[in-house]
Amino acid sequence: MKVLLSFILLFFSTASFAQKARDYGVEIGVMKTGKLNSITDVDGVKVGHTTRVEGTTIRTGVTAILPHSGNIFQQKVPAAIYIGNGFGKLAGISQVQELGNLETPIILTNTLSVPMGIQGTVKYTLGLEGNENVRSVNAVVGETNDGGLNDIRGMHISESDVIKAIESATTGQVQEGNVGAGTGTIAFGYKGGIGTSSRLVPKSLGGYTVGVLVQTNFGGVLTIAGVPVGKELNKYPFKNAIEKSDGSCMMVVLTNAPLDARQLERIAKRAMMGLAKTGGIASNGSGDYVIAASTAESMRIPYQTRNTTDNGGVLRNDEMSALFMATIEATEEAIINSLFTAQTMTGNGRTVESIPLNRVISILKSYGVIR
Amino acid sequence: MKVLLSFILLFFSTASFAQKARDYGVEIGVMKTGKLNSITDVDGVKVGHTTRVEGTTIRTGVTAILPHSGNIFQQKVPAAIYIGNGFGKLAGISQVQELGNLETPIILTNTLSVPMGIQGTVKYTLGLEGNENVRSVNAVVGETNDGGLNDIRGMHISESDVIKAIESATTGQVQEGNVGAGTGTIAFGYKGGIGTSSRLVPKSLGGYTVGVLVQTNFGGVLTIAGVPVGKELNKYPFKNAIEKSDGSCMMVVLTNAPLDARQLERIAKRAMMGLAKTGGIASNGSGDYVIAASTAESMRIPYQTRNTTDNGGVLRNDEMSALFMATIEATEEAIINSLFTAQTMTGNGRTVESIPLNRVISILKSYGVIR
Amino acid sequence: MKVLLSFILLFFSTASFAQKARDYGVEIGVMKTGKLNSITDVDGVKVGHTTRVEGTTIRTGVTAILPHSGNIFQQKVPAAIYIGNGFGKLAGISQVQELGNLETPIILTNTLSVPMGIQGTVKYTLGLEGNENVRSVNAVVGETNDGGLNDIRGMHISESDVIKAIESATTGQVQEGNVGAGTGTIAFGYKGGIGTSSRLVPKSLGGYTVGVLVQTNFGGVLTIAGVPVGKELNKYPFKNAIEKSDGSCMMVVLTNAPLDARQLERIAKRAMMGLAKTGGIASNGSGDYVIAASTAESMRIPYQTRNTTDNGGVLRNDEMSALFMATIEATEEAIINSLFTAQTMTGNGRTVESIPLNRVISILKSYGVIR
Amino acid sequence: MKVLLSFILLFFSTASFAQKARDYGVEIGVMKTGKLNSITDVDGVKVGHTTRVEGTTIRTGVTAILPHSGNIFQQKVPAAIYIGNGFGKLAGISQVQELGNLETPIILTNTLSVPMGIQGTVKYTLGLEGNENVRSVNAVVGETNDGGLNDIRGMHISESDVIKAIESATTGQVQEGNVGAGTGTIAFGYKGGIGTSSRLVPKSLGGYTVGVLVQTNFGGVLTIAGVPVGKELNKYPFKNAIEKSDGSCMMVVLTNAPLDARQLERIAKRAMMGLAKTGGIASNGSGDYVIAASTAESMRIPYQTRNTTDNGGVLRNDEMSALFMATIEATEEAIINSLFTAQTMTGNGRTVESIPLNRVISILKSYGVIR
Repeated sequence: MKVLLSFILLFFSTASFAQKARDYGVEIGVMKTGKLNSITDVDGVKVGHTTRVEGTTIRTGVTAILPHSGNIFQQKVPAAIYIGNGFGKLAGISQVQELGNLETPIILTNTLSVPMGIQGTVKYTLGLEGNENVRSVNAVVGETNDGGLNDIRGMHISESDVIKAIESATTGQVQEGNVGAGTGTIAFGYKGGIGTSSRLVPKSLGGYTVGVLVQTNFGGVLTIAGVPVGKELNKYPFKNAIEKSDGSCMMVVLTNAPLDARQLERIAKRAMMGLAKTGGIASNGSGDYVIAASTAESMRIPYQTRNTTDNGGVLRNDEMSALFMATIEATEEAIINSLFTAQTMTGNGRTVESIPLNRVISILKSYGVIR
Repeated sequence: MKVLLSFILLFFSTASFAQKARDYGVEIGVMKTGKLNSITDVDGVKVGHTTRVEGTTIRTGVTAILPHSGNIFQQKVPAAIYIGNGFGKLAGISQVQELGNLETPIILTNTLSVPMGIQGTVKYTLGLEGNENVRSVNAVVGETNDGGLNDIRGMHISESDVIKAIESATTGQVQEGNVGAGTGTIAFGYKGGIGTSSRLVPKSLGGYTVGVLVQTNFGGVLTIAGVPVGKELNKYPFKNAIEKSDGSCMMVVLTNAPLDARQLERIAKRAMMGLAKTGGIASNGSGDYVIAASTAESMRIPYQTRNTTDNGGVLRNDEMSALFMATIEATEEAIINSLFTAQTMTGNGRTVESIPLNRVISILKSYGVIR
Repeated sequence: MKVLLSFILLFFSTASFAQKARDYGVEIGVMKTGKLNSITDVDGVKVGHTTRVEGTTIRTGVTAILPHSGNIFQQKVPAAIYIGNGFGKLAGISQVQELGNLETPIILTNTLSVPMGIQGTVKYTLGLEGNENVRSVNAVVGETNDGGLNDIRGMHISESDVIKAIESATTGQVQEGNVGAGTGTIAFGYKGGIGTSSRLVPKSLGGYTVGVLVQTNFGGVLTIAGVPVGKELNKYPFKNAIEKSDGSCMMVVLTNAPLDARQLERIAKRAMMGLAKTGGIASNGSGDYVIAASTAESMRIPYQTRNTTDNGGVLRNDEMSALFMATIEATEEAIINSLFTAQTMTGNGRTVESIPLNRVISILKSYGVIR
Repeated sequence: MKVLLSFILLFFSTASFAQKARDYGVEIGVMKTGKLNSITDVDGVKVGHTTRVEGTTIRTGVTAILPHSGNIFQQKVPAAIYIGNGFGKLAGISQVQELGNLETPIILTNTLSVPMGIQGTVKYTLGLEGNENVRSVNAVVGETNDGGLNDIRGMHISESDVIKAIESATTGQVQEGNVGAGTGTIAFGYKGGIGTSSRLVPKSLGGYTVGVLVQTNFGGVLTIAGVPVGKELNKYPFKNAIEKSDGSCMMVVLTNAPLDARQLERIAKRAMMGLAKTGGIASNGSGDYVIAASTAESMRIPYQTRNTTDNGGVLRNDEMSALFMATIEATEEAIINSLFTAQTMTGNGRTVESIPLNRVISILKSYGVIR
């Protein structure tokens, strides 16, 4: 009944937002989602997309994630990066790891557009009021390779595409699927894209929110809420598969819990555990990166201040486990959402189908996961 | 039918080896297992246990894993260690990471018996023929905390317990469940222990074997072949759970693929992805360590030689992905096997039940996983 | 006498190459240098510079280091990166660390020109014969911040500057000082720049060559061959110093020893020990990165091959120590060379003097280091 | 004159503490030392030694460093470990790195006595008032190999030796040279041992104290205050040297600056830079480990508390550089002190001379370092 309702909503509503897995009755994990089931459930977080679908060959874009609405360079946030498998070009890694903070929006795009991603982010930052004398900017720019559907060698993303994604970012519901950096990506042999999800930690454990946004472009044995859908569809690596498992997944985890860089690195490692539950194997050719940051105001790191110490009150080790679970669940669901919301795409001489929703739902029902 | 047969075998056979998950019809993953579905499917690998169940309070032991039958100090093997969550006392980490090799058997025991684990391993090694002048030995000794069922503060393991486990190690089928280092461990609120599994990479991709042995002592939402069994049993962390999710998991991955330390570290990281699929969350209090080594003869590293280079022929990056998948699957199944083979244990004033097999099988059937 | 001769050579020769520290009689360490005392003593290595000194504000450039003369993408070399202090923007880190290889020339430039550094390197690589279908390129682009003498916010480096540096690279003697990526850099409060040096491991220990090239832009208590020159000149951080110690140092170490990524990471760590001996402190604002690669033909990693393993014959751990010492010495001397070869520079409204050679030599004599 | 005075003091005083390098007029670096020029200049820090010189073959011991006088398990301190070269057996690494804290005294001993080091530390900790229910203790036990002068295979250190070192620890001046864990160690071909030094950060930069204690057992080209003493003595690796350069150095850095684990890891990396300045090369066989911890009361991490966050007020990145320089200088001087304070030792059939003080001083004078 719930599923039927979802279909009706899907086909007849005028909503511009695609249906997430949960709208079809798929429940992942045991924790509650935030109101929007999105990374923007973390207060103050904004997401913006530039989507480039032009002619027959350009199928790419940019996604920008802003941890807060202020000047991020002036009010840095604690951050960490974990590398599941490092076949990728994520810019900005070492400075985040050394200094434990993030000073720009997080940008996602395609592999060969990382330089324009950095260029745009740097110019945006240099141009902000208060940054007139800044001479060093650590842009964090991730990517996956959309060369299957996009003329990636054409390097079509410009720095203005990047600035546009940043400047158009908003709070509220997030476009998923074939948008922004997910425009041309492929996951599990189907059309991937942008997906997002969130979890609420119980009040008794702090009541924090964890939000995840992913750019999916990887392979494995697609597993939805534990069901080996890829196996049932006979579409998986190393046996009868046409698709290779290579590819990548960018994962962004934000939380309002007061975490420092060390705790955030621990959080970041858990996102890979969420990816594992979707059937991903972090294949050799995969660039699986997790960027985690805390949006807690008490943890902000001012660029300039008279203080010699930063604010503290970091969450204790003993309080971390629920956040770990939240991260795992939200990452798993964000990945699945990217598949549910993506649509069949033709580009660069190739067509990649979205997941066959009817068959998938039927499989999920046969396993009792949708009831 | 297969399940029925399994039950018959279980109840009427005189076999001394407990039934694995697969014997009940549970299939995990898409790759084939080795003949024994055990770490000993990797040629030459030996496993030995010392099990200490004495009086009402001693419930502990030692498990030794030998990558080959020779003098391991004289013929070292390439190795790597990956740390999923480092709340643990694994000895030997830095030398393995620096030199890229393993020079002793791998020992598993309880947390406070690591010193005796080292002491026993060192004395065993010093005593081997050919090692008369050796003055430095890097023992690799892992642990989980069996203080729930065992009087761990009593520090009951002796160095002779350790030497006994090494010297009694054999090829062939491996005892699982409440044996050796798994004697007193607890996983997902049920009795955990030792588990093992293996996978064969298809011939076209090299035909290698990957074997995994685990010591399970951790928590999360127990998930068997994708089915959220812990949720169905209403026994999971952060909600109605009595059990906390803390604890640890030691994972040993051996393969005959010719891998060097860098490739083995990549393999080791995948074991954590297998753990994730069982519902583990690598909680704050978890010591989740993976020790991976290659048993390939071509990769042996002699302690003394006239050569200035070591043998090579390391598997190319491009050939790794199938081994990654094999590692994920074998780790997942080894963990599940530890639960299927463990039995209810009383110790130190507490009783921990084995998983309720009937209910679990019934749940797995309702999800279509056992058919 | 030797010093006198050096001065005569300096003032009367027509040589276009500046005098190195050793030409003034300064000996660093105990090992022999290669013929050119340069990174190009490693057979096949090429270095190229693009120097941009224009108007009153542009003082920057690009330096390209090529480990061999072929198509590096098709014939990758084993490589590692070590981060002494990570306040920097080096691109390409994670893929080098994951796959253990380098697939492009190494590019050095200024902080805000890293995107153009990547862009130029990618375009150069995509354009090479044989790379027509390549869709992923991991450019390794390092930087230091030349914003003291250069209008860095103007982002004046173009992708053609980068390609020009690569295409103009040659074997043989290397221009040092105010050239390429060293055009506008500052070290120990004096004009820094590009420096290079090399060491030969004794024949009995393999006879390998280690070459180092640095881009110096950092601070501390300048120490030349052990002499606390900065202290004698009363120019050092945290006391009477005008100059802050912040800044960065990029270090490139190449060797023809057959090393894999793990051994190269060990080598890379030693370069920081050479930096320490010059008085550097790796201050908070320092981006101190070491990129190490092996040029040994036996270690080449073809992009495409029918083989499933790569060539081996990796140098044994036991054979590494002399290479470690060679790396330390060559790095120390390369840094000192950058100071001896740099010249006073005015740019962006500021003048930075070269080290006061006469006083420095006088101090070195008073300490008995120049005799 | 100062040197003369020092000699007089050396030969005629009844002081039980050996003369440090500075007592001979050797100045290292540009920063001021603390009152005792010792790790115990950091308020509350205690050091204790058990020295075992028995018969002709036992030349070993234990050194314990306590960051504060309370129950360290109940009041943990932030800590980090950095590994310069990992050929060593330091216990406790991963938990310190994961949780960012230290919960026991730091123990130094010989390589094969690490198990007894752990055993003693665990028993000491379990036995403290308030720890009655503790079932997990992460002992941090470092080592170097004193097998040159000590019958290391005899494994003579007992757990009571360890407990004795802890319980005898005191504030105030620290015994150096042939004591505790330095009893049988060798450095640069001469008798090494325990050494210590400290630095004060200028008041304007926080006024913090950094103290270092080392156990020296390594090689290279001995360099004292920049003077290549090893070269002058013609005693160095890879040329005419009898001694190989292998060996290890344990370094403990404590500070009262309010640092968290991330900042402490940065501090720890700088200790290796101090080692580099003494001529050490971190040879293949070296176990060079740095353990850094903050003793600041505001940073204590209670084992049990009602708070969900830990105290903060962590020193900002921008404030770190002076502490880096202090760490480098104090480590360099602590190593040199270990050589100046050690005395010729005969053991296990071998005699190792102390540095030839007269010749060393003469060399230092000829270089103008002692004036």
